[in-house]
Amino acid sequence: MKIIDGGITAAKGYKCASMRVGIKPSGSNRDLMFLVSEVPATCVGTFTRNKVKAAPVKWDMKLVNETKKAQAVVVNTGIANAATGEQGLESCKLTADAVNEAMGIAPEYVVCGSTGVIGPQLPIEKIVNGVKELSGKLSDAPEEAENAAKAIMTTDTHKKDIAVEFEISGKTCRIGAMCKGSGMIHPNMGTMLGYLMSDVNIDYDLALSTLRAVIDKTFNMVSVDGDTSTNDTVIFMANGLASNNVIDDKNTDDYKTFYEVLYTVCEFLAKNIAEDGEGATRLFTAHVTGAPDYETARIIAKSVITSNLTKAAIFGKDANCGRIFCAMGYSGAEFDPDKVDITMVSEAGSIKLIDKGTLPEFSEEEALRILEPKEITAECELHMGDAEAVAWGCDLTYDYVKINADYRS
Amino acid sequence: MKIIDGGITAAKGYKCASMRVGIKPSGSNRDLMFLVSEVPATCVGTFTRNKVKAAPVKWDMKLVNETKKAQAVVVNTGIANAATGEQGLESCKLTADAVNEAMGIAPEYVVCGSTGVIGPQLPIEKIVNGVKELSGKLSDAPEEAENAAKAIMTTDTHKKDIAVEFEISGKTCRIGAMCKGSGMIHPNMGTMLGYLMSDVNIDYDLALSTLRAVIDKTFNMVSVDGDTSTNDTVIFMANGLASNNVIDDKNTDDYKTFYEVLYTVCEFLAKNIAEDGEGATRLFTAHVTGAPDYETARIIAKSVITSNLTKAAIFGKDANCGRIFCAMGYSGAEFDPDKVDITMVSEAGSIKLIDKGTLPEFSEEEALRILEPKEITAECELHMGDAEAVAWGCDLTYDYVKINADYRS
Repeated sequence: MKIIDGGITAAKGYKCASMRVGIKPSGSNRDLMFLVSEVPATCVGTFTRNKVKAAPVKWDMKLVNETKKAQAVVVNTGIANAATGEQGLESCKLTADAVNEAMGIAPEYVVCGSTGVIGPQLPIEKIVNGVKELSGKLSDAPEEAENAAKAIMTTDTHKKDIAVEFEISGKTCRIGAMCKGSGMIHPNMGTMLGYLMSDVNIDYDLALSTLRAVIDKTFNMVSVDGDTSTNDTVIFMANGLASNNVIDDKNTDDYKTFYEVLYTVCEFLAKNIAEDGEGATRLFTAHVTGAPDYETARIIAKSVITSNLTKAAIFGKDANCGRIFCAMGYSGAEFDPDKVDITMVSEAGSIKLIDKGTLPEFSEEEALRILEPKEITAECELHMGDAEAVAWGCDLTYDYVKINADYRS
Repeated sequence: MKIIDGGITAAKGYKCASMRVGIKPSGSNRDLMFLVSEVPATCVGTFTRNKVKAAPVKWDMKLVNETKKAQAVVVNTGIANAATGEQGLESCKLTADAVNEAMGIAPEYVVCGSTGVIGPQLPIEKIVNGVKELSGKLSDAPEEAENAAKAIMTTDTHKKDIAVEFEISGKTCRIGAMCKGSGMIHPNMGTMLGYLMSDVNIDYDLALSTLRAVIDKTFNMVSVDGDTSTNDTVIFMANGLASNNVIDDKNTDDYKTFYEVLYTVCEFLAKNIAEDGEGATRLFTAHVTGAPDYETARIIAKSVITSNLTKAAIFGKDANCGRIFCAMGYSGAEFDPDKVDITMVSEAGSIKLIDKGTLPEFSEEEALRILEPKEITAECELHMGDAEAVAWGCDLTYDYVKINADYRS
């Protein structure tokens, strides 16, 4: 597998375009993204477990569960189309109808995505007109892919995309992927919005089970603020244009390759979301090892990166490992506190701050030096078994509060 | 029942004293509090469910579960005596021995409490010498009670205490109570530290079950930052000096009076903790009504006041009810989003911001006016039944981050 240029349209048969139609209250940023596949693609997805689901989530869930194929994606930013009732679903339908009119693509093959303020209705004429205009500008040029990744951003400070190339049964396959994150990030299924477009030829059921498995270990292991969004969506489309032998058996090298590639792509995007969390200055990783089982490791890792107190300490470069230990303790997982070691690691070195459940002697100066870099990892060893898990978060800063105290203005 | 002066030593037979012994790194604030009851008191308590339990929590749990009586309380601030292993427990023993030596009270009747930084060992000689010195200064004067409530504070901006008088079987009974809160507040049993001293005569088992029931609806419904402390402790002592007929039957008016009084005291302290959360400028209450059962209401109310995004919006006086709706949705409770109404209420009036699951037309100016006061309540109506619950939190502010980015320095 190698990383290549080309972003979201790197795989065969995908084109996109984006523009500003005026959904965001101000600024000149793009707020509408339109993407099509030359042919209908197998489409799987994972969605928020929030009981309050945005209209596009309900729309996409139906598509993924019933139609199982997609050929176009329309994403707007600025308004989440959540808590919008029947009118919200009607907006999805009108968007799909606009795609049908412009491109002849079946409305039930149109994936809809929205992100932004919860509550208001979408200005649907702007979107319908935007889709019409964008349908004449679709392109697989790298600049368009870059613009698409920017068009789905809200408070993100930079685009998050990646493209990879790999080989299945002698054929070159590709995945182009992008996502947006930033705030209300505590995915319980996917992240805010993530799109993975591939030309690989793969069985629907196998694609779905693989996506779910990978998402659980990547996007679902990220937290910015503990708030699970109403709009979390990850969509994976595979149009088969790579002409590889269909991947339909878990016990093959081809499947293993595909799994590794999908994991790498999702892990890259998930880490990007954590590092670019609202107001964040640091990527904070929790790596739990020596757990009796994966679930124990997972629960503890997630609890550590979600702790407000730990996140504030990471912002302050404060070697306050007691907070990490405390967050492990209230995670709900079973472990023996008296066996726990916690070591803080960065490119500057490592320092053990909890040793068999107690605080050892340590140099504050040395700790400060190790907590200085932009990427900090807490290695939490339980000494109970061989299972491990990783979760990614960020620090809690003044800017997080500032951004969210007046998000709508 | 009426509220009276006298704080923690308002009930018959209690005296206290406090001083600065130098556990806190700087400042002239008191950091050691010593309290005794004239006679041994029935003692019940509730403690953190965090797997990582501080040494004084382990010490007190043994006392409450085995000895079931107490006659003295020693509390230090500055160091939590958590993650301190065997030496931490030894510090509790040495403290109890010091009380025994000074007052002749059995060591197993001494309640220990600590709050502060997790990790370091206690400077035990300072505490032992402090106890000796304070034993000669014990008093039931209101000024000493006031100093005691201040001595157990960490980043609290004001003391939190209350005293009440009520009648049981024709006898005047009293409860004096105090607590501290501020940060690492998401009690899953008690709050950081809370002490309730009464002269009532009550059966141990009934006192314990009542305390647990009341704590679940008061202290356990508060959150400042979602972090459950290693030290959460609430202790209730009843020395029987009021000479009322023993309360030992749930089906009596006396018991109902006692329950009401204990609930009122705990609710008062819990609300105080929320309002004085680290960096907080506002008390934010979630009142969930129309739930099919209490548990559903409880889970939703707690989720709303714990949401970082909602807390930041309350700080910014932003009528962003979508975040409250979102936090209800990811709470894990079952409800129908399409039936939900959310109304924001303050002394300035009320405004409905979610109507049957969608955002109605509303005036931003009117919303801003209603979100201006210091106490804001979100009334969340599920339209599914008659059960309700209340939870208390605060806003998320720059100062919360500031306080916790360099807590130890």
